[in-house]
Amino acid sequence: MKRIKLTVAYDGTRYCGWQIQPRDLTVEEVLNEKLSQLLKEEVRVTGASRTDAGVHALGNVAVFDTDSTIPPERMCYAVNTVLPDDIRIMDSREVAGDFHPRYCDSVKTYQYHIQNRRFPDPTKSRYAHHVTAPLNVAAMGQAGALLTGTHDFSSFCASGTQVKSMVRTVTDLKVWGSFDPVCISDLPAGPGQDIVIEIRGTGFLYNMVRIIAGTLIKVGLGVYPPDHVREILEARNRQAAGETAPARGLFLKEILY
Amino acid sequence: MKRIKLTVAYDGTRYCGWQIQPRDLTVEEVLNEKLSQLLKEEVRVTGASRTDAGVHALGNVAVFDTDSTIPPERMCYAVNTVLPDDIRIMDSREVAGDFHPRYCDSVKTYQYHIQNRRFPDPTKSRYAHHVTAPLNVAAMGQAGALLTGTHDFSSFCASGTQVKSMVRTVTDLKVWGSFDPVCISDLPAGPGQDIVIEIRGTGFLYNMVRIIAGTLIKVGLGVYPPDHVREILEARNRQAAGETAPARGLFLKEILY
Repeated sequence: MKRIKLTVAYDGTRYCGWQIQPRDLTVEEVLNEKLSQLLKEEVRVTGASRTDAGVHALGNVAVFDTDSTIPPERMCYAVNTVLPDDIRIMDSREVAGDFHPRYCDSVKTYQYHIQNRRFPDPTKSRYAHHVTAPLNVAAMGQAGALLTGTHDFSSFCASGTQVKSMVRTVTDLKVWGSFDPVCISDLPAGPGQDIVIEIRGTGFLYNMVRIIAGTLIKVGLGVYPPDHVREILEARNRQAAGETAPARGLFLKEILY
Repeated sequence: MKRIKLTVAYDGTRYCGWQIQPRDLTVEEVLNEKLSQLLKEEVRVTGASRTDAGVHALGNVAVFDTDSTIPPERMCYAVNTVLPDDIRIMDSREVAGDFHPRYCDSVKTYQYHIQNRRFPDPTKSRYAHHVTAPLNVAAMGQAGALLTGTHDFSSFCASGTQVKSMVRTVTDLKVWGSFDPVCISDLPAGPGQDIVIEIRGTGFLYNMVRIIAGTLIKVGLGVYPPDHVREILEARNRQAAGETAPARGLFLKEILY
């Protein structure tokens, strides 16, 4: 019996998230079904991150145990032949039998993508949240920097979750924008920009990244001054922070153990 | 009667190209239908570029004549409320009554997008051609530079077209790659890269950009040395060039008049 670790990428548009649901299609369900079919044994994967409906992943992690004789590092090639196009195994390798993707220490990196222009570019709409009014990226970066470190993130946690502690550590939070040099140079509203909020940390609360994104958008719009995020943290109250930004802009980029 | 110029962006995945077809859904058909519905008059757009099935656009151009009292620069807001999400009018303005988007002189910019990594990132698959083996971007750029200027591009034109002259001018051809710094750093196959071929010119033959892309991919793979594109040009024979690269990687970025 071997334990295999998979690095899983998916376009979350079509899925009701990672975790198996009674009715709706999920990534976990597809992996279990296709792996079982391929390996001719009952396979049940354990995922690192139960991403929400519509959230994308470039490097989620799942493990499963198997008696298969397929070499672990070749497993990704075999599985990709039976998976739908919107799920791809980017890597497969053997890990120790006691490796658990949720309980072992890890650093997760998320990105939140925003397209900031008068009208949404339809070729970006599946993978970015559209904001019409110009965002001040520098102000968003200043506010983001105030969120790094170890804090009680109660204000950035969706209500209804039952966890012991709301204290989490954000090791890094960067915001950058890139102007599109071509195409819309001629438009009266200016060229527009693609903005990325990248957040790295050792653990995240429910909807934490999307609430941080929604809050930084309010800073970028000038609704909040950057310093206001200190008060939001201190309030320890979900109502103090900005809206939960839409799922389509969120990517789980990487999990490092 | 006013002539309105629209800058049209679309995700081409769902469309059988620009030009109206008896059976299949096209961008032109949707624009005619939605504009007629909105303006309560029979509207027929004239497009600048009849993009093929599956090709995307960020800045195709269309004009139409109307008696509408909607201010021309506000037209885009009105039309976008009735269009499907995968078509967006990025700009609208009045032009002279004799302006014709195909017969007036213009410079068109196309981009061809390639994702070059072991397995395709599913969140890029709709908008980029996937190539597994590592591509040499520098060699692709050298070959591309040899295609700039005024040449007989017969070798880069799909057969069956009836045009008087195969001579076209490519004013600029650049190739660049960007490595993805996060996520796949840990993979044995390396990080992978996103490659863009950007081609600017005053006129293009049928499938010319996709055949150039297919040829530059062969150069990038080492199948052809960069200098070989000179011989391909001289052959004036479609068989001499590489395959027509898939539509999903092609973007019509901009048309400047």
